[in-house]
Amino acid sequence: MKIKTALISVSNKNQLNNILKLFKKYKINLISSGGTYKKIRSLGYDCVEVSNYTNFPEILDGRIKTLHPKIHSGILFKRDNVSHKKTLKKLNFSSIDIVITNFYPFEKIVNQSNNHNKIIENIDIGGPTLVRAAAKNYKDVVVITKIDQYKNLIKEINSNNGNTRLKFRERMAREAFGETAHYDSIIYNYLNSKSKKEIPDKLLIYGNLLESLRYGENPHQFGAIYSNGENFNLIKLNGKDLSYNNYCDIFACLNLTKTMPKNRGVVIVKHSNPCGVSIEKNKLKSYTSAMNCDPISSFGGIVACNYKINLKTAKEIMKKYYEVIIANGFEKNALKKFKQKKNLRIIDSSDIKVKTDCSIISGVNSFLMQKNDDLIFNKKNFKIVSKTKPSRQLIDQLIFSLNVCRSVKSNAIVITQNNKTLGIGSGQPSRLDSCKIAIEKMKKFKQYNNSDPLVAASDAFFPFVDGIEKLVQAGITAVIQPFGSIRDKEIIRYANEMGIVLVFSNTRHFKH
Amino acid sequence: MKIKTALISVSNKNQLNNILKLFKKYKINLISSGGTYKKIRSLGYDCVEVSNYTNFPEILDGRIKTLHPKIHSGILFKRDNVSHKKTLKKLNFSSIDIVITNFYPFEKIVNQSNNHNKIIENIDIGGPTLVRAAAKNYKDVVVITKIDQYKNLIKEINSNNGNTRLKFRERMAREAFGETAHYDSIIYNYLNSKSKKEIPDKLLIYGNLLESLRYGENPHQFGAIYSNGENFNLIKLNGKDLSYNNYCDIFACLNLTKTMPKNRGVVIVKHSNPCGVSIEKNKLKSYTSAMNCDPISSFGGIVACNYKINLKTAKEIMKKYYEVIIANGFEKNALKKFKQKKNLRIIDSSDIKVKTDCSIISGVNSFLMQKNDDLIFNKKNFKIVSKTKPSRQLIDQLIFSLNVCRSVKSNAIVITQNNKTLGIGSGQPSRLDSCKIAIEKMKKFKQYNNSDPLVAASDAFFPFVDGIEKLVQAGITAVIQPFGSIRDKEIIRYANEMGIVLVFSNTRHFKH
Repeated sequence: MKIKTALISVSNKNQLNNILKLFKKYKINLISSGGTYKKIRSLGYDCVEVSNYTNFPEILDGRIKTLHPKIHSGILFKRDNVSHKKTLKKLNFSSIDIVITNFYPFEKIVNQSNNHNKIIENIDIGGPTLVRAAAKNYKDVVVITKIDQYKNLIKEINSNNGNTRLKFRERMAREAFGETAHYDSIIYNYLNSKSKKEIPDKLLIYGNLLESLRYGENPHQFGAIYSNGENFNLIKLNGKDLSYNNYCDIFACLNLTKTMPKNRGVVIVKHSNPCGVSIEKNKLKSYTSAMNCDPISSFGGIVACNYKINLKTAKEIMKKYYEVIIANGFEKNALKKFKQKKNLRIIDSSDIKVKTDCSIISGVNSFLMQKNDDLIFNKKNFKIVSKTKPSRQLIDQLIFSLNVCRSVKSNAIVITQNNKTLGIGSGQPSRLDSCKIAIEKMKKFKQYNNSDPLVAASDAFFPFVDGIEKLVQAGITAVIQPFGSIRDKEIIRYANEMGIVLVFSNTRHFKH
Repeated sequence: MKIKTALISVSNKNQLNNILKLFKKYKINLISSGGTYKKIRSLGYDCVEVSNYTNFPEILDGRIKTLHPKIHSGILFKRDNVSHKKTLKKLNFSSIDIVITNFYPFEKIVNQSNNHNKIIENIDIGGPTLVRAAAKNYKDVVVITKIDQYKNLIKEINSNNGNTRLKFRERMAREAFGETAHYDSIIYNYLNSKSKKEIPDKLLIYGNLLESLRYGENPHQFGAIYSNGENFNLIKLNGKDLSYNNYCDIFACLNLTKTMPKNRGVVIVKHSNPCGVSIEKNKLKSYTSAMNCDPISSFGGIVACNYKINLKTAKEIMKKYYEVIIANGFEKNALKKFKQKKNLRIIDSSDIKVKTDCSIISGVNSFLMQKNDDLIFNKKNFKIVSKTKPSRQLIDQLIFSLNVCRSVKSNAIVITQNNKTLGIGSGQPSRLDSCKIAIEKMKKFKQYNNSDPLVAASDAFFPFVDGIEKLVQAGITAVIQPFGSIRDKEIIRYANEMGIVLVFSNTRHFKH
């Protein structure tokens, strides 16, 4: 069954010439409409215009071109059905064996324009209909929906003497429904965002495969990463492929570094939790401060710097084993240095924009969706409840502490001094236990001085005095936490007795 | 601008009468095709058949019905465009102001049938085309795609004297693209699964809103839950609405209880981590064993029983404060007892089927997808590397230990005895610290006896001897862990020196 007739209707006309050459070779007749017809003719190929083919004009500024029974019968009739064939013969319709289409660039226009009418005009009606009809009838018809399929199509037709195999047509049909589903998901999400609907009735998520990963969280689980739009700009400059867990840790880093002042922040993450964080003008010192918070746990972790890494810092980082280094750029000699370790993954994140948005996770037969916790802390939203009042500088340190704290898995307690972490307690069902872990870490690695204040943040309220008591006994003199315990008064009283600063953040920051 | 003409083409003909009554009231003309036409006539209403309207027959067993320029021009022309109006006049086409459609039940057929041809035949082509055209032109046209919109349509038309407001049409258009995107996503995913494509080029996820939640993980984040298919069968029998965190914890419970033998497992979860797990034939004892593992942390947690709760167990559970009780059913008097606490959430999970499938999470401008870690452990896949060999019973206890361990956030160490947890160490960047936490918990709550073996599981290999050493010093005599450390030999030697059982699971079980 040779391909006799092709219908071509493409919005993006790149690389069309390759297809036309192929079709000429196999004497495939062309039907086309509007701009595509003109393009084909201008390239010097014969082509029948849809309006001549159907004997019906192209009307309504192109809104109606291919929506005609002669076109769709030619696509949709079953080639092995005698009655279908008779019908076509009776109506003097002929078969259309291949459909090549790409759609009006709805997504591009949405990203470029705020003109709603223009955006709506770019909803393609004819294209998706052709594609869906051809895809449904893939048993007999080929459907091509993307320019990057042209190469495979040419190869397929050349290797099959002007025809295609069922397997190929099936794959193209599958990808076609991927395109139409993706296209309408974008339209749906555009209309939702336009109507400011935060929680739509339907969840429609789409992504394009960025890469298949070696495996998921563990080797017996397959894994992959998909982009959400066109803005996935992590650039790998060196090293092995990123793993599923690398990506998780990178995202944990980026969500924290974005809260930090530019050009001075360092985060070291291990198992999705920060194990060392620092803000320091001096790049090298910022790194060593973060690393020294827990030099044991940081082994095999991920280092993220929100600055351009220089040679001096690179040399220091190289002294330890890490899986990934991620930074806002690398000085040439620093990159060269890193490249001495062939496997070390070096990622440039300077082009990535971390959007404030929603996130979803899979549940059992379900998905949970929520707004990200991307609140920017502001003193105005805090309530200073202790008699001792914090300085502006101390408030900043409490904000740093709380920013780290909300990126630590709950229950989380973070102790800091001068904008570097000293002890991080994570992932405990008991808040008291998280306090103990943070204090132990601080005492173990002794990165504090005895003159500056030690501050602590808690991701949720202390249910009892015991947690805050432990912290004060360890030398902490300022604490930030949300309110909400029935023992809040008791806790305030305790803070006042001890003369420490107690600030209510007014927002809780669980992270699981 | 009154609605004059309606096109109705529905696969599911329920509640059509209400619409027809309304349309008669407002003297709206009807166009319809195939089965819908017959239904309308049988209900006693006037209606023009599409083939009469277009003067073109319904052909190819209904594959071509409405795909005609007269239909689509009537939908797509711009009512405020003089040239469009002239075109319609010239062609003697008239306006179609409302489209009521629902699609061939593709999803239902996929769930019912393995007949691929039948499934493909249920890909609707005409319906989505009508819907997309009408939705694009929502400025002038109403599109109805779901039976549950009929009520609103009737209200809208009645309150607007036979017309609709732009706002209403826009909402219907948004929901229409939700339907088409959803429909094609299902087709895409069906074709992917048919071709056994584990990692498709596109990620297309869809869900229907189950409920908007009070908030997400924290009060300043909005949140919602969406069903993935028709199988979300958690039934709430009592109590307040479930929160985002409740759902997370319920899913953590279900993923663990499904690994346990039926009618005897109890899991208590707090902050997504188990803090007490037990398998015991006696229901009451199974609960108390799980609870006693960490009676402090379990406060405010979630209790999941994979059995039907009886009164005796209910009474015991009621002694403590929990957020949610979830079980495979409740005996009548047990449920009555629970209902004394008006706010206590009581969830029946007996109808839920936890599918083995993939899961996704949001990353920065991306999604990570992976196969779930739902491996069923089998002795055959383990390697016993110590000289001391475990009994069949001890292997079972190690499997229990490892099942709990893989549901604990990494790094995870779990100590158990007789299929109940004694100490759980979670969420630490250092494996040694997780060991210490697990041992401390065990020592604190002293739920062990001195005659039966204490066993431990680690989600990943021990990098050094120190972790396993700590466990052995605390009395553990059997350990299961994956292999992979460069010090594996050293660890095996240590195990043999101490005479303990050491089993390599061969699979790692990180969970973040």
